[in-house]
Amino acid sequence: MEFKVSKELISQIEVLITSKDDRALETLLNDLHPADIAEILDELDANEATYIFKILDTEKTAEILLELDEEQREDILERLSPKEIAEELDALDTNDAADIIAELPQSRKEEVILELQDVEHAKDIVELLRYDEHTAGGLMHKELVKVNENWNVLTCVKEMRIQAENVSRVHSIYVVDDEDRLKGRLSLKDLLTTSTKTAISDVYIRKLNMVKIDTEDVEVARIMQKYDLEAIPVVDEMGILVGRITIDDIVDVIKDEADKDYQLAAGISQDVEADDSILDLTRARLPWLVLALLGGFISVRVLGLFEGAMLEHGHLFFFTPLIAAMAGNVGVQSSAIIVQGLANNTISGSLFNRLIKEVSLALLNGSILAIILFLGSHFLLDVEMIVGLIVTIALVSVIIIASLIGTFIPILLDKFGIDPALATGPFITTSNDICGILIYFSIAKLILGF
Amino acid sequence: MEFKVSKELISQIEVLITSKDDRALETLLNDLHPADIAEILDELDANEATYIFKILDTEKTAEILLELDEEQREDILERLSPKEIAEELDALDTNDAADIIAELPQSRKEEVILELQDVEHAKDIVELLRYDEHTAGGLMHKELVKVNENWNVLTCVKEMRIQAENVSRVHSIYVVDDEDRLKGRLSLKDLLTTSTKTAISDVYIRKLNMVKIDTEDVEVARIMQKYDLEAIPVVDEMGILVGRITIDDIVDVIKDEADKDYQLAAGISQDVEADDSILDLTRARLPWLVLALLGGFISVRVLGLFEGAMLEHGHLFFFTPLIAAMAGNVGVQSSAIIVQGLANNTISGSLFNRLIKEVSLALLNGSILAIILFLGSHFLLDVEMIVGLIVTIALVSVIIIASLIGTFIPILLDKFGIDPALATGPFITTSNDICGILIYFSIAKLILGF
Repeated sequence: MEFKVSKELISQIEVLITSKDDRALETLLNDLHPADIAEILDELDANEATYIFKILDTEKTAEILLELDEEQREDILERLSPKEIAEELDALDTNDAADIIAELPQSRKEEVILELQDVEHAKDIVELLRYDEHTAGGLMHKELVKVNENWNVLTCVKEMRIQAENVSRVHSIYVVDDEDRLKGRLSLKDLLTTSTKTAISDVYIRKLNMVKIDTEDVEVARIMQKYDLEAIPVVDEMGILVGRITIDDIVDVIKDEADKDYQLAAGISQDVEADDSILDLTRARLPWLVLALLGGFISVRVLGLFEGAMLEHGHLFFFTPLIAAMAGNVGVQSSAIIVQGLANNTISGSLFNRLIKEVSLALLNGSILAIILFLGSHFLLDVEMIVGLIVTIALVSVIIIASLIGTFIPILLDKFGIDPALATGPFITTSNDICGILIYFSIAKLILGF
Repeated sequence: MEFKVSKELISQIEVLITSKDDRALETLLNDLHPADIAEILDELDANEATYIFKILDTEKTAEILLELDEEQREDILERLSPKEIAEELDALDTNDAADIIAELPQSRKEEVILELQDVEHAKDIVELLRYDEHTAGGLMHKELVKVNENWNVLTCVKEMRIQAENVSRVHSIYVVDDEDRLKGRLSLKDLLTTSTKTAISDVYIRKLNMVKIDTEDVEVARIMQKYDLEAIPVVDEMGILVGRITIDDIVDVIKDEADKDYQLAAGISQDVEADDSILDLTRARLPWLVLALLGGFISVRVLGLFEGAMLEHGHLFFFTPLIAAMAGNVGVQSSAIIVQGLANNTISGSLFNRLIKEVSLALLNGSILAIILFLGSHFLLDVEMIVGLIVTIALVSVIIIASLIGTFIPILLDKFGIDPALATGPFITTSNDICGILIYFSIAKLILGF
């Protein structure tokens, strides 16, 4: 039932483009959903994609534009005149139109805005362009349905019919006073089940969640998730209703935030995808590798401090990767749990309780691993008993320290207003590698006295 | 404006509970949103929470039940009779009620179901309990608004008023034939703007997305995101409309999936939170640490193979943590990008092209890092030139191999239907550690001939 792009379909379309058979192309594509057509266009080269773009209706192409890969969209827009772009934008919601304009080069931005036909729409778009994309203002749509608290249900339904023309999904009906200040909301269901003569002020719900125009996007997502909202109104400093954020935009915020945290944990610092250019991927990955390399220099230096052990106790050096790996893994686990807890607001209790818990957890994990290691070093690796003992003691100490570093560095960063996700991945593994090796050889030196 | 649980509020409530001042408790809590009351109850002990639970209205407590932590919910439900639980469930949507019943111990399940008052509701709940929670059937609600294709708009609006009583959010109105087979949908907006005498068959939209009852939850999420849907109807094998999935449930699926991938990448194998018990956390973390430890045994063995180098070229051993760390970091980066690409369906092109791309990327990153390493080993670490050279050559080779392992293991797992996210984190770092060390010393042996 679901649409899938096939190689056959792509070559069929390429043949039709070469032979300029617009009729056949239209018949083929008109039945498809814009998201599906976007998938097809992503497989074509920019000139072919632009060709198809020009033969389809604006209503359809405007939707396609939203669904395209950023790079392909850029390539197609480059091939359109400011007037053609403006026609697409006139067919879109203000928020989507503003997002697309924001991607254009500065000089084209102004040309395109001047070509917009619907002046009210253009004003709204220009207003939205002012807001940071990571705030409620940057997420909101200007399209919404609002009624005056002094109306009755009949006037309200009439007005709604007019306003609903421009709103793709009604959700709530917002109630405002004469100054456009947000007073409450009216559910569609209530409206369907109330007599037409009732005054709006008698039926509307006065309690409602709202956000300010400068509320951060992540905070908006948190509120909408907590209260299970499908739309939330946005007000300015005066309490005037200026827009509305719907759950589909929040889904993107949640997804982007999760993707960002995931990438940071893997040591990737910008939002990249497998299909991005090698240069983009390098920019996102190299800085963390350089950090890890510099950390590696420190670990070489630390090992150099214990060079004296090499003659008599060379076997100790065989265990450095093992100790470093365990320290890294434990640290990443601890930091991931804390970073997720901070993001989802599920961390309760005092710092001291957290400390006790982490240490107990580390002791439990550490003891079990210590037994495996001690037995393993004796039966599988046949090293001297004393080396096995040192490695085992070191392992438990390293696991405790690594889990504390993994837990408290993110908490510390969060307290200082820095994204705790930065502390996961290479940062934690590198610092835990170094600490782990230092602890290991210090214990060895203490016991063996080299 | 937003509600925050304070210590003062909690102690105030505890005092009121001790003095059994129900009136004051009600006044204090009745104005709050169920999600906020749930936050308060999570801070109280189970007996206090149950006390509050019993003095509030069922309508409110039913909502609170949904918002509680799983553990606290379990503790409260243990303290309620089957009849009391059934009263809560009667006030909930079928899907939410089924989710809560599913959490009960087997014997209580049946007792509670027998106590449900609304027989239709009970039937729907029992039906939903049959479906796997990770399928469309497990996600769907039975509550929806449907109209017959043979009605006109007026009959339709009347019927909707009745049906809408049980549906918290209308979204779409589904059109069915006399056998309840799904034929299409009607938008609320269309209904608002169409004359009351029009036949439904003249205005309804025949094309609509739907999912089968056994479609996987992740697939439902993908379809709803791709086509930007706020609700999707679910049909059975005969095409009969059996339920509806709304976007708020999908938000949870997306979040859970992202959390799961994130945790797997950090070496945590079950869905745990910072506030879970030490035993739960150990169960989730220990298996990966054991895996890493066993990997560590292998690395000890591998290093043992090159013991001969220790006398003359002991400095080589100082670099093992550096090489292992770089191999691990590169592997995690590559695997994270591929796992995310597989999850978001953004990987295109052939395997061969992917190979070329990964090798180019590794060469670019590797060369830059090699220069830093070579200069660093000379000026910062003052090791012999030949050791610096060996480490540098090893680094480039290791980066290429690690990025290939990181890229192709997830792709391979995915091809065999195994979750590729399993291959991130400890699995990749451990195997790359071992490969990295082996490559490094093999190169050293080749050049130095020990």
